[in-house]
Amino acid sequence: MVKRNPHIAALPSQYLFVEVARRKAAFCEKNPDTPLIDLGIGDFVDPLSQTVAEAMSKTASSLATKEGFSGYGPTAGNQLLRERIANVLYQDKINANEIHISDGAKPDMGRLQLLFGSKVSVAVQEPVYPAYVDTSYLLGQKELVLMPNCTNFFPNLSETPRTDIIFFCSPNNPTGTAATFEQLEELVAFAKKNRSIIIFDTAYSAYIRDPNIPKSIYEIPGGREIAIEVGSFSKMAGFTGVRLGWSVTPKELKFEDGTTVADDWQALYSRFFNGASIVAQAGGLAALTPKGLNESKLLADQYLENAREIKEILTAQGHSCFGGQNCPYVWAQFEGLSSWEAFDQVLNNAHTVTVPGSGFGKSGEGFLRFSGFSKNVLSCC
Amino acid sequence: MVKRNPHIAALPSQYLFVEVARRKAAFCEKNPDTPLIDLGIGDFVDPLSQTVAEAMSKTASSLATKEGFSGYGPTAGNQLLRERIANVLYQDKINANEIHISDGAKPDMGRLQLLFGSKVSVAVQEPVYPAYVDTSYLLGQKELVLMPNCTNFFPNLSETPRTDIIFFCSPNNPTGTAATFEQLEELVAFAKKNRSIIIFDTAYSAYIRDPNIPKSIYEIPGGREIAIEVGSFSKMAGFTGVRLGWSVTPKELKFEDGTTVADDWQALYSRFFNGASIVAQAGGLAALTPKGLNESKLLADQYLENAREIKEILTAQGHSCFGGQNCPYVWAQFEGLSSWEAFDQVLNNAHTVTVPGSGFGKSGEGFLRFSGFSKNVLSCC
Repeated sequence: MVKRNPHIAALPSQYLFVEVARRKAAFCEKNPDTPLIDLGIGDFVDPLSQTVAEAMSKTASSLATKEGFSGYGPTAGNQLLRERIANVLYQDKINANEIHISDGAKPDMGRLQLLFGSKVSVAVQEPVYPAYVDTSYLLGQKELVLMPNCTNFFPNLSETPRTDIIFFCSPNNPTGTAATFEQLEELVAFAKKNRSIIIFDTAYSAYIRDPNIPKSIYEIPGGREIAIEVGSFSKMAGFTGVRLGWSVTPKELKFEDGTTVADDWQALYSRFFNGASIVAQAGGLAALTPKGLNESKLLADQYLENAREIKEILTAQGHSCFGGQNCPYVWAQFEGLSSWEAFDQVLNNAHTVTVPGSGFGKSGEGFLRFSGFSKNVLSCC
Repeated sequence: MVKRNPHIAALPSQYLFVEVARRKAAFCEKNPDTPLIDLGIGDFVDPLSQTVAEAMSKTASSLATKEGFSGYGPTAGNQLLRERIANVLYQDKINANEIHISDGAKPDMGRLQLLFGSKVSVAVQEPVYPAYVDTSYLLGQKELVLMPNCTNFFPNLSETPRTDIIFFCSPNNPTGTAATFEQLEELVAFAKKNRSIIIFDTAYSAYIRDPNIPKSIYEIPGGREIAIEVGSFSKMAGFTGVRLGWSVTPKELKFEDGTTVADDWQALYSRFFNGASIVAQAGGLAALTPKGLNESKLLADQYLENAREIKEILTAQGHSCFGGQNCPYVWAQFEGLSSWEAFDQVLNNAHTVTVPGSGFGKSGEGFLRFSGFSKNVLSCC
């Protein structure tokens, strides 16, 4: 008989958001008449921009016409979309051909783990978005380093051992903190010194309003030599169900033997993926027009305002709070309680769904993550 | 510095279809006024069904409304779509909950390799669709068995060593042959005896017209205990650019330790994937309505007729031909020539793009694959 893959067997049995959904459903069953505020999973709650929806609708219709039909596209994505991302989001500091269009950041994280394989050592922030850790387990990577925390959840790099790969998420999920220019300069210098590769997750960069917070690792000198960047239309423009993202592999990024990381990425990509949906890609093109960008920005502003309000309320209640600026998440400490105790307390008393911090690693114990993706936050806590 | 993943380094440097595209482009540059017939890559050439396009268009539009917006869906897919696949394509012999909706068969093959990991032994047919072999290399699987051929490209199972996993594609890409009931009974018995798991690729099942050719491995008694099935809307309904497929993991399918394969599949799925685009899923729902099915069937009939004509012409020219019935591919032998020589000859003399059989493994040497996905085949060879 076939043996179970030990790396899958080693995974934790419950995925964080599955357990949150289970407790939420149990509460709703017990309290069918109590309206719940969901500040749990980070997901758009407002309709998609009209500009984006119309573009996708038009493309979908045109697929039934001789002129509009299109089958397999390039695996790396629509060239026009690659160019528009390079132009609008990177001011052409990145070349379109360094971009691969994907079906979102999470699948890209999995494929990136495959790119480097099972032999690499990996560092992650703590607390950490589970996808990096889970995919590392799945690949059977032997060495996973949790970077010790310093100020405001930026890692203490002087106490961080060298690893091949460093996953770094800024603005951060779950802590809501966003690394400054100076911090990212320190990170790039650390990676350069150690000859590590950073996988920089910018899924929340559209929420940055402070000019001293970089939106891309490539704003840091030397970033191109040491970092892959992963971006997403999910939180930028509400594509969580539509599925669209991208990765950047600069041509300067090399392996030890001098070969180019981008070449291996393309080799893997064409074997594991067949392109993002052309309808989603049409939506991405529209999302990056001035009108599309503005419509999405108005929604992001609202979610940031929600986060600000959540933070204000929680701070007034005496909780230590992080984030909530330049990021739609607030990370709040509940002293004397475990995360799941705090989760149940907030669920039962304030009828509000959150995410237990312990789901993001041991250092998240005693914290809750509050998401600003909501229509109604004032009555929440 | 970071070491290159040796499994990626070990991959062949050119992917078959990339080289075909390169030679095609070179021909077009040299002969800008010569119309080319492309019987190469297997891809829809006709517009999508009106029913499917309208459904996707409507869903895309509705995403801009309060009622129609939807963010993250279930990773395993829209429940209604799972139910419709179970009902329409499996006559409810498969439960909807045994189905995972995907972004296509190719990414599913990669994820299935990950499911089983690097320690399993794998058998593939010969000639073989490169994706199974490439993803096996990528995972660093140590033992890859090429199943020896018997009649009509069905493997000689009495000479096939036992492996953990057997990839099997019927109707077959590239040979165009479709396994009969009796042959698949033999395959199921072989897997059962060896306690192997079959990964059954049914991407071309919509082309089966002969009632003695099963459209699913689950039509064979005992199939549920030994097989995962992967299906796709690509060749069934022209979704090559839209991206939609599914996998079936029956609850009877177990690992050596008695755990259920479906559970590990779900565990991996929720870490490596975030659902197919909801717009594509709306298209899938429409494709499985009586009207959608009929519109796609008319196109499939046309591609089958093309394949029949191609086979007739090639046979009249004295080539041994396989397939071309119940499958849109014809597999033709060009005696005395290598596949690439035959490819160049057909390209230069008949202005027709094909796919060299050698790209599907050594046993494909001297063959060409002709695809029926075309508007104009009569002048082809």
